[in-house]
Amino acid sequence: MPTALHAWDPVEIALQGASNGNPYLEVQLSAIVEGPDGEAEVIGFHDGGGAYRIRFLPSAPGTYRWRTRSNHPELDGKTGSLEVEAARPGRHGPVRAEGVGFRHADGTPHLSFGTTCYAWTHQDPAVQEATLRTLAASPFNKIRFCLFPKSYRYNENEPPLYPFEGTPLTEWDWDRPDYAFLRHFDESVRRLDELGIQADVILLHPYDRWGFSTMPRDAEARFLRHVVARLAAFPNVWWSMANEYDLLPDRTEEYWDGVFQLVRDADSAGHLRSVHNCVRWYDHSKPWVTHLSVQSANVGQGAELRRRFGKPVVFDEVCYEGDIEETWGNITGFELVHRFWVGTVCGAYVGHGETYRHPEDLLWWAKGGELRGESPARIAFLRRIVEETAPDGLTPIEDDWMYHGRGARASDGSVLVFFGPHQPCCWRMPPGGPFRVDWIDPWEMSIRTIAERAESGQVVELPSVRPHRALRLRKL
Amino acid sequence: MPTALHAWDPVEIALQGASNGNPYLEVQLSAIVEGPDGEAEVIGFHDGGGAYRIRFLPSAPGTYRWRTRSNHPELDGKTGSLEVEAARPGRHGPVRAEGVGFRHADGTPHLSFGTTCYAWTHQDPAVQEATLRTLAASPFNKIRFCLFPKSYRYNENEPPLYPFEGTPLTEWDWDRPDYAFLRHFDESVRRLDELGIQADVILLHPYDRWGFSTMPRDAEARFLRHVVARLAAFPNVWWSMANEYDLLPDRTEEYWDGVFQLVRDADSAGHLRSVHNCVRWYDHSKPWVTHLSVQSANVGQGAELRRRFGKPVVFDEVCYEGDIEETWGNITGFELVHRFWVGTVCGAYVGHGETYRHPEDLLWWAKGGELRGESPARIAFLRRIVEETAPDGLTPIEDDWMYHGRGARASDGSVLVFFGPHQPCCWRMPPGGPFRVDWIDPWEMSIRTIAERAESGQVVELPSVRPHRALRLRKL
Repeated sequence: MPTALHAWDPVEIALQGASNGNPYLEVQLSAIVEGPDGEAEVIGFHDGGGAYRIRFLPSAPGTYRWRTRSNHPELDGKTGSLEVEAARPGRHGPVRAEGVGFRHADGTPHLSFGTTCYAWTHQDPAVQEATLRTLAASPFNKIRFCLFPKSYRYNENEPPLYPFEGTPLTEWDWDRPDYAFLRHFDESVRRLDELGIQADVILLHPYDRWGFSTMPRDAEARFLRHVVARLAAFPNVWWSMANEYDLLPDRTEEYWDGVFQLVRDADSAGHLRSVHNCVRWYDHSKPWVTHLSVQSANVGQGAELRRRFGKPVVFDEVCYEGDIEETWGNITGFELVHRFWVGTVCGAYVGHGETYRHPEDLLWWAKGGELRGESPARIAFLRRIVEETAPDGLTPIEDDWMYHGRGARASDGSVLVFFGPHQPCCWRMPPGGPFRVDWIDPWEMSIRTIAERAESGQVVELPSVRPHRALRLRKL
Repeated sequence: MPTALHAWDPVEIALQGASNGNPYLEVQLSAIVEGPDGEAEVIGFHDGGGAYRIRFLPSAPGTYRWRTRSNHPELDGKTGSLEVEAARPGRHGPVRAEGVGFRHADGTPHLSFGTTCYAWTHQDPAVQEATLRTLAASPFNKIRFCLFPKSYRYNENEPPLYPFEGTPLTEWDWDRPDYAFLRHFDESVRRLDELGIQADVILLHPYDRWGFSTMPRDAEARFLRHVVARLAAFPNVWWSMANEYDLLPDRTEEYWDGVFQLVRDADSAGHLRSVHNCVRWYDHSKPWVTHLSVQSANVGQGAELRRRFGKPVVFDEVCYEGDIEETWGNITGFELVHRFWVGTVCGAYVGHGETYRHPEDLLWWAKGGELRGESPARIAFLRRIVEETAPDGLTPIEDDWMYHGRGARASDGSVLVFFGPHQPCCWRMPPGGPFRVDWIDPWEMSIRTIAERAESGQVVELPSVRPHRALRLRKL
């Protein structure tokens, strides 16, 4: 337990009240919280056994005073105050969209390098621990995963816990969430936060054999509001309304608008919001969408999407490294690294996943566990290069056809070029020089300076005619 | 000289008349030709020194009777007849669009495997002979090249001949074509026909330092009509209105409509017509466009373009194999072969070009000469596979998402699949089996049967997890 409260760490107000009746359905609870960053109303929730909690995320050191509101007399009009200290080192608050890039709430730039383990929280504890260990040593600072258990090929095991009470697999009591399930989910998000990893929480999805994807709409809305109230105080949360939202049956575009609005309104910390498509894209220009979260192998359209929507572009599914039968899960590590580089120089963020066959169906993308592929080390190399070269993000170069789709500029004027299948003999330095020229092998993970100083307009001979190379032009 | 006339070989009626005044401007000449295939009016032309020619392409054996019409009394009302024998073996007549595929006029299917040497007819004779020798041994059955000389990087030499009389490089007499230039161009087309190679004649283009791309519009129209009248009797002609038509200055879409109509109306043999873009596409749905001739590296859109336009799709510029500085000319042979395979299984035709640096600027794409790259042998291998497997063309499989973009069906039910960067462990046989299953390495050019008989729905384990492989499912 922490001995003090800090900005950008979750704060919880715990209250005890009666638990007769059905507090999940019947009790409304919130608090007006007034602190150095202003005043806000924060929604609370029942956490089973008469325990009520109101969680919020302080953004600044100082005194926070709170007063509850409830339709339950025992919980209404309670007051208190909390002293919050400055943020711990390395704590920067939630990631926000700023223009076409991301920054933490304290202004620190955020470069997103995500992966996907849809059902990692629904596995045996040993597998979950392995997932966290793997993530800690990986280049990934975001993980997409599902709130509800997943039923799909390679996801055929039952989860240890279910989100509702009832008779598992046959009949659920939509009026009674399973608080152990929910507390475990909280804890999963908290463990990720400890590792500095963003939790891209997928609220709904269509891969279901239990009936969770077709529960009554009022029960779904109540459950989502509860989950948002539970999790919003964790600074590392991103909200994904759904995975492959267009495969969920009988839901109109207006329905999804409503889900976005519900999440936005219940979220006291203003986390990122998007939705992931299968074939049909949601209209990302709508005001409640903070960034694009798209499935597309065509990462080269990143620059165009940035321009069209004016929002950050995350290609979180571009096919996974693996060898399974399904086409979305059998590209080579080499090809996935290639897509990371192309997306990166197009000013977008690309997501990883891994789907190698395993005798016990331990596919990373499905369940987490261990990574076996060739791409993570190369994604780490790319991440290091981008962090060194363009710590506040890359802007694709679209005004020069030789660089268009291949090159991007850092805010200091440095340039990163990725040649992919191209093998030019030589390369002309763009305006804005002079530059130091580094020749990069993204697969062998080597960097070699080939010109200590090259002026704009100068044509630099490249050391060998080989494809899949990159150049870094460091502004001198 | 041939001792007899044959169907699908050009026939020429030669007349002599006065050459005073300017016959190019002043003399109109045509013939009504009546043969076993009906009656048609064919435009004639002055060929210098009072020589007049009317050329046509007979499509069937039999007697062809002709009668001239002219505003020149010496040339008017002349009559004659010609006996035409059956087509020589291997002579099938012009290529026509039929739905989304190509067939020769006699019904023989045509699978297009093209290359590009823009200015090959404007080089020294020795280079031209080398080009023809190279083509004869190559997998290519079509070549794109320019009527007018080309001025561009790597195309800096003067041509041996110019299309007009005048003072070279400074002032041209638009009223006086250079007949030696034109006869040489005829001969180039004829030499290609001898080799069984389609001549994709690019009528206009913007790469110019002499003023040919900006001549007066009436002079341009007169010259184009003359060229079409000269060349239309060659069965191997395709008309490309222009290369990168959208880079020619001051021409509206309506202007290009007019060029298409002029060519269509002057052409007695009804050759294929299209136009090649840089960035802005011409509207290929217009009725005078017979097929798409597009510049795009996105060959995976072939299936969609076939569906949208209902016409054959030729991606004749998808970046060239080479190592020059310019991005359109420095992909690897491996990548070009990859694009050929993707385009092919998307039901389209892909074009080759080669742009390796050369001390004397002898780049194949520019001037012809020798091929040095790695792709032609692999394109030959692909051509052989397609000719064996789908002699009348491939139809992309769009009703099965595992095959969509990766597989195409032959008319006999056989299937060709290309995995590109995908490395599936195994592959499920589509409906329409049983099949014999061949494992293909497009780069090493090997074919190995991995299952003598596989039923529809059966999952066949693939011999190794490696990318850039193909499967052929031969319908049993």
